[in-house]
Amino acid sequence: MDFTKTKNELSQLIGEKKVILKNDGTMDESLFNSYGTDRTKVYPPNYQVLVFPESTEDVAATIAYAYQNEIAVVPSGGRTGYAGGAVAKNGEIVISLSKMNQVVDFDPFLGTLHVQAGMITKNLHKEAEERGFYFPVDFAATGSSHIGGNIATNAGGVRVVHYGLIRDWVLGLTVVNGKGEVYRFNGEILKNNTGYDLKHLFIGSEGTLGIITEAVVKLTKPPKDIRVIFLAVPEYKNILEIFRETHNFDLPLLAFEFLTDYCLDKVKEHLGVPDPFQAPSKYYVLMEFEVTGETDEEKLYSILESITEKELITDGSIAQNSRQNETFWKYREGISESLSLAYTVHKNDISLPLRNMEAFLDEMSSLLNQKYQGFHIALFGHIGDGNLHLNIVKPKDLTDADFFSQCKQVDPEMFTLIQKFKGSISAEHGIGLLKKDYLNFSRSQSEIDTMRAIKLAFDPKGILNPGKVL
Amino acid sequence: MDFTKTKNELSQLIGEKKVILKNDGTMDESLFNSYGTDRTKVYPPNYQVLVFPESTEDVAATIAYAYQNEIAVVPSGGRTGYAGGAVAKNGEIVISLSKMNQVVDFDPFLGTLHVQAGMITKNLHKEAEERGFYFPVDFAATGSSHIGGNIATNAGGVRVVHYGLIRDWVLGLTVVNGKGEVYRFNGEILKNNTGYDLKHLFIGSEGTLGIITEAVVKLTKPPKDIRVIFLAVPEYKNILEIFRETHNFDLPLLAFEFLTDYCLDKVKEHLGVPDPFQAPSKYYVLMEFEVTGETDEEKLYSILESITEKELITDGSIAQNSRQNETFWKYREGISESLSLAYTVHKNDISLPLRNMEAFLDEMSSLLNQKYQGFHIALFGHIGDGNLHLNIVKPKDLTDADFFSQCKQVDPEMFTLIQKFKGSISAEHGIGLLKKDYLNFSRSQSEIDTMRAIKLAFDPKGILNPGKVL
Repeated sequence: MDFTKTKNELSQLIGEKKVILKNDGTMDESLFNSYGTDRTKVYPPNYQVLVFPESTEDVAATIAYAYQNEIAVVPSGGRTGYAGGAVAKNGEIVISLSKMNQVVDFDPFLGTLHVQAGMITKNLHKEAEERGFYFPVDFAATGSSHIGGNIATNAGGVRVVHYGLIRDWVLGLTVVNGKGEVYRFNGEILKNNTGYDLKHLFIGSEGTLGIITEAVVKLTKPPKDIRVIFLAVPEYKNILEIFRETHNFDLPLLAFEFLTDYCLDKVKEHLGVPDPFQAPSKYYVLMEFEVTGETDEEKLYSILESITEKELITDGSIAQNSRQNETFWKYREGISESLSLAYTVHKNDISLPLRNMEAFLDEMSSLLNQKYQGFHIALFGHIGDGNLHLNIVKPKDLTDADFFSQCKQVDPEMFTLIQKFKGSISAEHGIGLLKKDYLNFSRSQSEIDTMRAIKLAFDPKGILNPGKVL
Repeated sequence: MDFTKTKNELSQLIGEKKVILKNDGTMDESLFNSYGTDRTKVYPPNYQVLVFPESTEDVAATIAYAYQNEIAVVPSGGRTGYAGGAVAKNGEIVISLSKMNQVVDFDPFLGTLHVQAGMITKNLHKEAEERGFYFPVDFAATGSSHIGGNIATNAGGVRVVHYGLIRDWVLGLTVVNGKGEVYRFNGEILKNNTGYDLKHLFIGSEGTLGIITEAVVKLTKPPKDIRVIFLAVPEYKNILEIFRETHNFDLPLLAFEFLTDYCLDKVKEHLGVPDPFQAPSKYYVLMEFEVTGETDEEKLYSILESITEKELITDGSIAQNSRQNETFWKYREGISESLSLAYTVHKNDISLPLRNMEAFLDEMSSLLNQKYQGFHIALFGHIGDGNLHLNIVKPKDLTDADFFSQCKQVDPEMFTLIQKFKGSISAEHGIGLLKKDYLNFSRSQSEIDTMRAIKLAFDPKGILNPGKVL
């Protein structure tokens, strides 16, 4: 393919400074490559043309051109994904939304914010805050992830147990389909029962149905004050008991996270932080509550008292201020980084009905102990949502190739177990390239066939992020 | 068509007692007819075969038969719709879900209830309550509406401002498509990012993509205690000010409803209730808050004080107990009945962005005053959601035919105005038969084309509720 021709023709359409050819002297090669990959690092990027649209019209013109010339395109957001959903490895045109990062409009009555898709999530948090509101979708990567990418992957994070997934916060979407046609779904209204809600198809579609260029998100009022409780829990089944007790408690439960002793050790090693408790424990739970005044602070003590009396924990501590909240959160939010910087890991991100979790964990432990002799398993996650991040850690004496090949053999057996317990093989991370071969463990053949039919309706030539999801 | 043959063949497939032929001696004709219509009363039912499946398999067998024989089917729930979505007027097979009304399963951890689609909404409320939980979707027709119908029309109601639409409460759906194939979407897990969320297509699809046979809904904890405040408001713009103030207040705002003086008069006439305030007012607002203790009760007084000081209201009253809550609610919930029993009305159910509401109401008043000389307009609704129920009341001296013909002429002008202000021509009621010709005022041509393509994927022979929505 003549990529110089592609670059020149696209430049004609949307403006020269918005189109970059690899090694044309305007951008360092490794920076260029970084726009065509994500955090998986499994698939080396391989592409030549990078586009920085500045408007929905630019995106539409680019895709209309790609449609006419049958060239594939890959959307590029903050590239913080873990499933290879934003990888360009076959000479696609990469469309980075990063220059589309502005607020378009704001409605102070309901608190809705209309933004371009390339706005960094953390900046959206700030824009909401400056207007007296709060955008509750939050997770470790918000400093670089884009709101458009969050929507395209239906991001979750640490406060899903209270606020839900990003799907619950999207009112309107502007989307360009695989022919370069623009849809403007719903706008900013709360209620609109006029036919099929097509917007929801795009949420979580990982760029395979269209490229999200703008979004109207709902905001809410900020939590008054926040207090974290950190617990040492001796047995898994106690975690569920504690969840049941606190989920139905008076105070809003904003987060309910857990980690194992192995995860805590890795965070301590990596961040150099001290032991949070005097005696070690097999599990740790981090709970976050919204509190408004002194009466609420007293309630925190009554929760801790109640679960202590029931002998569900061996130790527990209530943060006394926001700095201590952050200290406690480090033990949870530092896990991914501590593991990925010091070790090679194979990530799984799964979800189960809470009531099946214990039986699943029993069977899974047997399976993993049998199959992965001598491997460490780092288990943590949003347990209040039934969501486990299950990381297999490569032993030092194994090559990467051998390690990943072993993982690839065990994965299907684990997915079979997940299917048996009615769970999902991808709770948050999506399918992308990484889980594509296993989609049938979570979706029936008729669902997959229907997805293909729907893909065809939006993207008749199959040029949108080809090879991902389906 | 030989309906006796249809009846006999269906009886063979699913059992004789589940299939009824019109006037076969098992059911009174008017009762039979009632299964093939809804509350619009505009379209007389005309059909011969009525099926009462008892399981998803029965529904699948019935639709597979209909697919093979190219006979259309119409799903029949609680028949409380206002858009003609459940009308069988062309000899379709009517499938009533009313015998499928059982609880299938319950998960006490998260509080999820798996039920059959024919469960009456009020009974679902009870099932939740008995298990210590709360299902928050509530509206006047819950005593007869089915949960399946609620989902198929994406029901809203009086507490959307706090709890959202029913869409937000559906985790899993079992659906039979137009070929008789069964989909079981998602089950009971909270997080499942494995491809397109097809379930959302069915929510609000009004039976045109598939028949919902089972649903897993989320439950929440019940509100501790509830207090209603009733306000007399002199000007429309004050309503928005009051909303902004209370929406961001400390206490959870569960409902924010409004009505005009005309509506209040009709309720007083019909229910024989006294004036709630000493002096009449142009508008009335009903606000409902969740309260937990004495401190919260004090907060109610502080809200009332604050809006009184700002001269936003001329009078206001706080309910002192749950009986008085109900008394206040009667002024709002009695409106529809008071109007429809004593008058012929033409209903519109529209939504606007809140910030455009005042300008829209100004222009709409001019339009209606000019076009509907001497007609009364009853305006009320879920104003906190931007949702207005706009009922045109027929003058006594006009025939029904002349009245509806005049309404039909004015509707498109009103819809043009709604489109201008970025609203929806159907906030809650759906499209059905009644609004079908006007779908293009709320959806673009490319959206409508895409909906048709999606319809074809699920219902290739177009036998599912034909003529509705699209």
